[in-house]
Amino acid sequence: MAKVKVGINGYGTIGKRVAYAVTKQDDMKLVGVTKTKPDFEAYRARELGIPVYAASEEFLPRFENVGFEVAGTLNDLLNEVDIIVDATPGGMGEKNKPLYEKAGVKAIFQGGEKASVAEVSFVAQANYENALGKDYVRVVSCNTTGLTRTLSAIQDYIDYVYAVMIRRAADPNDSKRGPVNAITPSVTVPSHHGPDVQTVIPINIETSAFVVPTTLMHVHSIMVELKKPVEAKDVVDIFENTTRVLLFEKEKGFESTAQLIEFARNLHREWNNLYEIAVWKESISVRGNRLFYIQAVHQESDVVPENIDAIRAMFELADKWESIKKTNKSLGILK
Amino acid sequence: MAKVKVGINGYGTIGKRVAYAVTKQDDMKLVGVTKTKPDFEAYRARELGIPVYAASEEFLPRFENVGFEVAGTLNDLLNEVDIIVDATPGGMGEKNKPLYEKAGVKAIFQGGEKASVAEVSFVAQANYENALGKDYVRVVSCNTTGLTRTLSAIQDYIDYVYAVMIRRAADPNDSKRGPVNAITPSVTVPSHHGPDVQTVIPINIETSAFVVPTTLMHVHSIMVELKKPVEAKDVVDIFENTTRVLLFEKEKGFESTAQLIEFARNLHREWNNLYEIAVWKESISVRGNRLFYIQAVHQESDVVPENIDAIRAMFELADKWESIKKTNKSLGILK
Amino acid sequence: MAKVKVGINGYGTIGKRVAYAVTKQDDMKLVGVTKTKPDFEAYRARELGIPVYAASEEFLPRFENVGFEVAGTLNDLLNEVDIIVDATPGGMGEKNKPLYEKAGVKAIFQGGEKASVAEVSFVAQANYENALGKDYVRVVSCNTTGLTRTLSAIQDYIDYVYAVMIRRAADPNDSKRGPVNAITPSVTVPSHHGPDVQTVIPINIETSAFVVPTTLMHVHSIMVELKKPVEAKDVVDIFENTTRVLLFEKEKGFESTAQLIEFARNLHREWNNLYEIAVWKESISVRGNRLFYIQAVHQESDVVPENIDAIRAMFELADKWESIKKTNKSLGILK
Amino acid sequence: MAKVKVGINGYGTIGKRVAYAVTKQDDMKLVGVTKTKPDFEAYRARELGIPVYAASEEFLPRFENVGFEVAGTLNDLLNEVDIIVDATPGGMGEKNKPLYEKAGVKAIFQGGEKASVAEVSFVAQANYENALGKDYVRVVSCNTTGLTRTLSAIQDYIDYVYAVMIRRAADPNDSKRGPVNAITPSVTVPSHHGPDVQTVIPINIETSAFVVPTTLMHVHSIMVELKKPVEAKDVVDIFENTTRVLLFEKEKGFESTAQLIEFARNLHREWNNLYEIAVWKESISVRGNRLFYIQAVHQESDVVPENIDAIRAMFELADKWESIKKTNKSLGILK
Repeated sequence: MAKVKVGINGYGTIGKRVAYAVTKQDDMKLVGVTKTKPDFEAYRARELGIPVYAASEEFLPRFENVGFEVAGTLNDLLNEVDIIVDATPGGMGEKNKPLYEKAGVKAIFQGGEKASVAEVSFVAQANYENALGKDYVRVVSCNTTGLTRTLSAIQDYIDYVYAVMIRRAADPNDSKRGPVNAITPSVTVPSHHGPDVQTVIPINIETSAFVVPTTLMHVHSIMVELKKPVEAKDVVDIFENTTRVLLFEKEKGFESTAQLIEFARNLHREWNNLYEIAVWKESISVRGNRLFYIQAVHQESDVVPENIDAIRAMFELADKWESIKKTNKSLGILK
Repeated sequence: MAKVKVGINGYGTIGKRVAYAVTKQDDMKLVGVTKTKPDFEAYRARELGIPVYAASEEFLPRFENVGFEVAGTLNDLLNEVDIIVDATPGGMGEKNKPLYEKAGVKAIFQGGEKASVAEVSFVAQANYENALGKDYVRVVSCNTTGLTRTLSAIQDYIDYVYAVMIRRAADPNDSKRGPVNAITPSVTVPSHHGPDVQTVIPINIETSAFVVPTTLMHVHSIMVELKKPVEAKDVVDIFENTTRVLLFEKEKGFESTAQLIEFARNLHREWNNLYEIAVWKESISVRGNRLFYIQAVHQESDVVPENIDAIRAMFELADKWESIKKTNKSLGILK
Repeated sequence: MAKVKVGINGYGTIGKRVAYAVTKQDDMKLVGVTKTKPDFEAYRARELGIPVYAASEEFLPRFENVGFEVAGTLNDLLNEVDIIVDATPGGMGEKNKPLYEKAGVKAIFQGGEKASVAEVSFVAQANYENALGKDYVRVVSCNTTGLTRTLSAIQDYIDYVYAVMIRRAADPNDSKRGPVNAITPSVTVPSHHGPDVQTVIPINIETSAFVVPTTLMHVHSIMVELKKPVEAKDVVDIFENTTRVLLFEKEKGFESTAQLIEFARNLHREWNNLYEIAVWKESISVRGNRLFYIQAVHQESDVVPENIDAIRAMFELADKWESIKKTNKSLGILK
Repeated sequence: MAKVKVGINGYGTIGKRVAYAVTKQDDMKLVGVTKTKPDFEAYRARELGIPVYAASEEFLPRFENVGFEVAGTLNDLLNEVDIIVDATPGGMGEKNKPLYEKAGVKAIFQGGEKASVAEVSFVAQANYENALGKDYVRVVSCNTTGLTRTLSAIQDYIDYVYAVMIRRAADPNDSKRGPVNAITPSVTVPSHHGPDVQTVIPINIETSAFVVPTTLMHVHSIMVELKKPVEAKDVVDIFENTTRVLLFEKEKGFESTAQLIEFARNLHREWNNLYEIAVWKESISVRGNRLFYIQAVHQESDVVPENIDAIRAMFELADKWESIKKTNKSLGILK
């Protein structure tokens, strides 16, 4: 069967990782990516033999001025693909959607968009089936994906969830954003993250969120009020048997997010991607009818396998577990 | 009546602030402070006319080597005072206690000590009376004090509290401790902070804690399960009428801990002390039977007025509100 | 003689400090300040009894919407003053100048403006006389002021200066700007700071500059090629006798900028202002014909006394040393 | 010819990278590595099939307690190897040397040791020949290596060098060290780095050093007084033709150390190693008889190829350029 032709609109933190992941799939073909300017990321794409398109006509001069030959513009790319992965900054996906509709291509949007932009909000292990044959799918944000991965695994036990999210201020390659020395709360409590989880799984959840001066990972402090009894060791077993979730022990030196990223660096993962959600094993505990655990989310990469699985679902290339296993194998995801 | 003669063992972050506060009281006299070495803090004390004592015999050479004349050692100081405020690093207070007992002086310990070191764990507005006439009182930690201030004000409504504490990694004058770029969880959940609050007020509380790379303040994300209904505006009223608690509005520019500290700097508070617990007004919300709010704690100073009130209680110099009002007025605490 | 009536356009980091300093002078009167929005800084000004004006007509609605009564707009303020201190963001001063000319008031600009905006670029101890009677004076930037203070003191020995400036990324009350975890060089070498020093003193100087993730102070690594021999101890003597320059010893615990700011906090300086340039005593050394030293600059406050002295010079209220002594005394500057 | 049998004493930041590099060489064999405790790094080594030895007898219980089987202790490893690469913390190498002598194995030490520990201080492209056949070689520190790489390339033009080093506070996997928010100078000026460069190449150099709160890279601001004229474009040519030195343009988005590391991540370099010294092309400039440029050094990896080349020189396996080319090719060093 012909490979699905994939284009990436926005070759940034997520876009470049999804582009890489597509090249690792035997049932997909990367047709090209868009850039707004000829920076080192654009030159790297060209080195890799990836056709680079201008994100729109208006950006062409930037490329011409430095003699960077583009393969065309977004519209040209749209004519070449079966599906476009929109990895543009939050809110732009909605603006781009008419172009995709006009071109008659399927589209995947990221978590920065409103749920209404797509037919389904997606986390593979939670609701792969809902995306089967769909034209517009939204892969939820890194934080929502992280919450959904672990919470969907213990869904039967959940009466209520309260999660506090301690968010990294900027990505490692972003030297503009702050704060340098402050903690910034989202003063609207509960935050929007709870409802966002509910676009994927029907659980009772409320959240609050804070930004702190670090670049590596987000961290979630999760408290679950239990519908039925469970012991900590049972939850350990469940997470050990949950795909894209890994347990880490402080006792082995995983004292902070710094060592979690070092773990990914030791694996020689591309861009030190930690596709899996990292749960501190010692943090899993049950007190009365409450379960507690702490997890970390690699904001740069946890949604990458979700984008791949979403493509498969939208073209009905594979069933849920066939796709997840295929994606995991291709990216070196441990389980 | 004769002023209570106060000594400070450990002229550090807390010790120097308590020493300053003592000099602002008309019923107390600062006799002296101890230092382990003649650093700029020791020279500042001398400039201020505060007698400096060596924290122990072993440290005398350090002072002699640079010709810094000390008034004696800790034992000499103990002979001159009615009460010693132990502001030494966590755990040392317990080791020092026998010296205080031998000298027959009352002692205040800080939150770094186990509760068992003293007869009562203390937060003035919560349990001033319990310290009346006592010989050994423990002023609880900055975080425990912060939690107790707001939670004791709404105690009647509390069925259960879950608080997540996002802690500053180091004090502003500490250039040794990290992390520079990571989030470090306390993987033992619930953390020890909940039980510590229970040494002051009998509420059902569990906590988790994280360290992040900032120096300004700790931030608490608090969720309360309500015993009886309350509206957000009622909680606003309660906090507006609670001493040593202030409401701040993001709408007025208080977007992070940075602007809270700027508020204290604008007041020209000594060391930009923010003795009051800062609650973000917009964060106070009620959903069903749950109350949420976010507060920030100035780890360097919120316990300072507590040390002063503890002294008054231990010598029965004043009743609860007389002491709190006196302390507030002397330190410029707004309410 | 009537006090000089002073207005402040821009009540931010510098503006609010200059406003405070004006209120400490017996020959000046603070008439009012401008704000673009009714944030907590505006409310603080009102608490202090300082008339608040809208920075322009366009901002009036922001104040009306929250019922914050302003005394008028910038133009109204200009009608009330003899001189306006422009403390608006870099580059805006030049745009504002026509308003000042139209109103016929003298004006002081800050270092964010081009030198051409004013008749003279000013550092009191270096060229006070040049500002006598002038209508438009530019107080140079915090970094240029810092370099000029120490370099003008050793000017006779200077053949050539190379200074490397390690700059704080954001002010303590700024929670937006980064980087969180990177070092950002100014790749144009030499940087613009050298020529800026030359607008005040005629020395041969080149500089390079870097931004690092800290908020407290800028640090300068200075190398001077000597025109004639000098010993380190002579330079120590010179700096000890130089106003607005202080020597700090690492041996006494001044290991980093953190302890320098703690020094200012210990003095209970308003906003922990360190008006003086801080030179590490141990860093002053001479090797062959080269002198080396390291200094730190408190970007929030070192230019504040310069603004006050500039006002005096422009109205010929006092001669150089009379003004400097007066300003130093009023602000608690140590020497 | 038999492969050289290599052991690594200290499987940390440098040790694990050198171990990896050794496995990439066709003329060397990795025999084993030592660890002081069974943390995740030890488990990773075992996963990779690398024999793990206890760094000394005293550490055996730590491994036994968790059932981690070691291949023996350091002494056992020494019996199996031709050469040991000492990658222990600074100063320990000197203490370890007698063990190496007793075992009759050659040894490489790192830059944390005094030059006197070895017969030669080494940077391959500068003095490979000096290490031929030697028993004890010291690979100089990351900073010294970085300075030597670019300065040796323009050595003929150098009359005098002044370099200011802005150092990262902690490595990315270190969550203990600070400062969180300060700049810490080395107050001894000139710093020890200049003399350290002179252990490799005979140039006239002085340096100063500062620590700042970042984890990614060190940055050097370099000023060279020229012995003979050179133009910026000539220096660009020289660096473009210098091995293990790369030019980066801010114009292409390399605004800070964050984007330099992103470049290495884009290359999918193991641990995002940037073995090459990164020079900002726009920063290279000549003014009169002075040359300026700014470079960044990846402290975790730039010395790794040097260790490999040192092994070849010590066993005379190849001549200088044969070894450098071989090492570069094996590690994907671009030129």
